[in-house]
Amino acid sequence: MKRPFVFINAAMSADGKISTYERRQIRISSDADIRRVDELRAGADAIMVGIGTVLADNPGLTVKFGNGNPIRIVVDSMARTPVDAEVITRKGGSTIIAVSKSAPNKRVNALRERVDIIVAGDERISLPELLNELKSKGINRLMVEGGATLNWGLISKGLVDEIYVYIGNMIFGGKEAPTLVDGEGFCELKDTVKLELKDFCRLGDGFVVRWEVKR
Amino acid sequence: MKRPFVFINAAMSADGKISTYERRQIRISSDADIRRVDELRAGADAIMVGIGTVLADNPGLTVKFGNGNPIRIVVDSMARTPVDAEVITRKGGSTIIAVSKSAPNKRVNALRERVDIIVAGDERISLPELLNELKSKGINRLMVEGGATLNWGLISKGLVDEIYVYIGNMIFGGKEAPTLVDGEGFCELKDTVKLELKDFCRLGDGFVVRWEVKR
Repeated sequence: MKRPFVFINAAMSADGKISTYERRQIRISSDADIRRVDELRAGADAIMVGIGTVLADNPGLTVKFGNGNPIRIVVDSMARTPVDAEVITRKGGSTIIAVSKSAPNKRVNALRERVDIIVAGDERISLPELLNELKSKGINRLMVEGGATLNWGLISKGLVDEIYVYIGNMIFGGKEAPTLVDGEGFCELKDTVKLELKDFCRLGDGFVVRWEVKR
Repeated sequence: MKRPFVFINAAMSADGKISTYERRQIRISSDADIRRVDELRAGADAIMVGIGTVLADNPGLTVKFGNGNPIRIVVDSMARTPVDAEVITRKGGSTIIAVSKSAPNKRVNALRERVDIIVAGDERISLPELLNELKSKGINRLMVEGGATLNWGLISKGLVDEIYVYIGNMIFGGKEAPTLVDGEGFCELKDTVKLELKDFCRLGDGFVVRWEVKR
């Protein structure tokens, strides 16, 4: 199956957390990083997030400084995206909610009045199938902005090409705090996903790293 | 209370994990990093680990290439360190097991035949009290080599001065995988520990970062 070029962008604390254990929306990145993320968004055909991120952070996923309005995509197996979520109501690119065949009809229909719906997968979203459909819709460059579960879903299936990480100058701690990549996780070294360090530079009080996923 | 200069050294995956969810001992760092860690050890008066790390990894905590044999310290509230653990049996610096007053006498006595025992704290080790005692024993520079729970205990109590992290070129994933700093975690931004980026450089296929803990 074909798919777009997929890159993850995330900000994490120095100990690998993308939020605190109570999922408080804490700003990890610096002003300079917000600009960098905006440019990445403007250069993408679409921005994708998981439903957990929508429910926890309610992001608008719009481009603030640059031009262009990438399509906004929510991976939402059970169609739990609230109809008044920022990703739907805030003026920006069009919105696609990707649901599974198990999503309740009533919620899917309520969303369908406001956004485009893609159905992919039975119980849960089939990510390869979804990416294939996005590619066929002309999405060639897809930016993923988390969260930890979606990142795992994509990485564990070999569907990610690059990872940008801003590492902030703080420690969150917390066994229960979400990290850059959660999910089940790999057990053995041979199964882990190998990366190649492409760039890293200081930015604000932290630094930004660009990893390429090895094939 | 007085205490030594305390620095943490750790290696983590690009997503902040210090081992996989099954706590498999996976080599994250490169050959060059092993040399770096050895030099850090040789420059410390003592090396400290938590009991979880002893039980999972059974490290010897010796200096391979350099000179000097720093004292080895295990933070082990309930005296669970096996008497045949490498940290006791491998030839190196002397070993101190720090226990709480709740540790079973039988186990403490079995350990006391082989190592020095420090008792600090009632149910669990009091880390400030332990560090105070270590300072009074002439330990001025203490290296902490994890794991995630001990790192949290020290960081959350303001007992850490510097953190060295090697970030390896792999993704482990895993909600249950131990991270650089676990424990309860901070909830609010105002409570998180702030760091200052002092150095970072490429090393092998990953890179090493030195953070100073802000006061």
